[in-house]
Amino acid sequence: MENKEISQAVISRLPRYFRYLGELKDEGIERISSQELSAIMDVTASQIRQDFNNFGGFGQQGYGYKVEYLYEEIGKILGLDRTHNLIIIGAGNLGQALANYMNFERRGFLFQGIFDNNPNLYGKKIRDMEIRPMEEMENFVREHNIDIAVLTIPKTSADAVARRLVDNGIKGIWNFAHVDLDVPKSIQVENVHLSDSLMKLTYNINRFEQGCYS
Amino acid sequence: MENKEISQAVISRLPRYFRYLGELKDEGIERISSQELSAIMDVTASQIRQDFNNFGGFGQQGYGYKVEYLYEEIGKILGLDRTHNLIIIGAGNLGQALANYMNFERRGFLFQGIFDNNPNLYGKKIRDMEIRPMEEMENFVREHNIDIAVLTIPKTSADAVARRLVDNGIKGIWNFAHVDLDVPKSIQVENVHLSDSLMKLTYNINRFEQGCYS
Repeated sequence: MENKEISQAVISRLPRYFRYLGELKDEGIERISSQELSAIMDVTASQIRQDFNNFGGFGQQGYGYKVEYLYEEIGKILGLDRTHNLIIIGAGNLGQALANYMNFERRGFLFQGIFDNNPNLYGKKIRDMEIRPMEEMENFVREHNIDIAVLTIPKTSADAVARRLVDNGIKGIWNFAHVDLDVPKSIQVENVHLSDSLMKLTYNINRFEQGCYS
Repeated sequence: MENKEISQAVISRLPRYFRYLGELKDEGIERISSQELSAIMDVTASQIRQDFNNFGGFGQQGYGYKVEYLYEEIGKILGLDRTHNLIIIGAGNLGQALANYMNFERRGFLFQGIFDNNPNLYGKKIRDMEIRPMEEMENFVREHNIDIAVLTIPKTSADAVARRLVDNGIKGIWNFAHVDLDVPKSIQVENVHLSDSLMKLTYNINRFEQGCYS
């Protein structure tokens, strides 16, 4: 099972299962059938069963899923049973917003540093983190065992910064720069292209207005 | 053609085509084949042809695509040939980051107002916009012909706010609240669930470390 290739479409759905199961758990619900989960999540029950089968199933026929067990197993699959050390590159509004978002911490994502190339920001604190100059980035990554870099910098500098990070052992990049990064396949990249998402929204608004949806 | 149902997977890829074509246009490139575009974008040429065929094709066999024409046509499909009026609900770091992002404006997304329920923020200006109290939201939406609301508020209040927006004629919601909104099907919703995206990244890092990718 460990070596089976799982499609990125399935993986994209896992965090949403994790979120709903967390809410069910918090409500004290112990067991749930795929039909019940289907009704809450607006996904077909067969889709749910297929998705879970990728990871060995998690349940017994006619018995439903144990909420807490399933929540924890999906958490493990998502790598949430261990902590990750992050740095943020770019201390603008978006970088600061991410640094301040406490909920990431609850999931084991530990922001260890934030970097910028604007000298006016050096030393300014965001929560407990001082904003540091970019020149310190490489050493910091190595010394603090940083896994993940969050890029909230303009696209023009993103590739060069990504290369420096990769050369210093980063494993994954959470990329908010509006460009597809050119990094080795061994580096995992997750893009958040905000403009793309906004354009998809206007596409759907327009199509709806043209009467193309029923 | 206008009434053909296009899959959301195709739609998700359109902004990326739009971005690459914009860059090619800026570089003065007038014509490009699906093979050349394929090499730049790391998508198969047949995928590109299939995607474009959903909209009538755009090109001639063996002749390639006219970059500027294609760029403009995809822009129209995405609804970028007209302006959209937006408001932001939630003037925290993320709301402010989005309000300050000038690039959206270049695409015809006009931020008209920003709202919060924290009295300490009322009157504070972000660019030219005053932060306004939530009580003014409904009137503002109607008076300024607001199409799109951007939600950067906690999930606990998101559904209630979304309902007030829908009741006052909003057409689309760009949702950063970490919850799936309960709104009528006629309202278009585009979710940006940041935690989900971060979890997908750690999943891929872990799988890679376990040697599950080749």
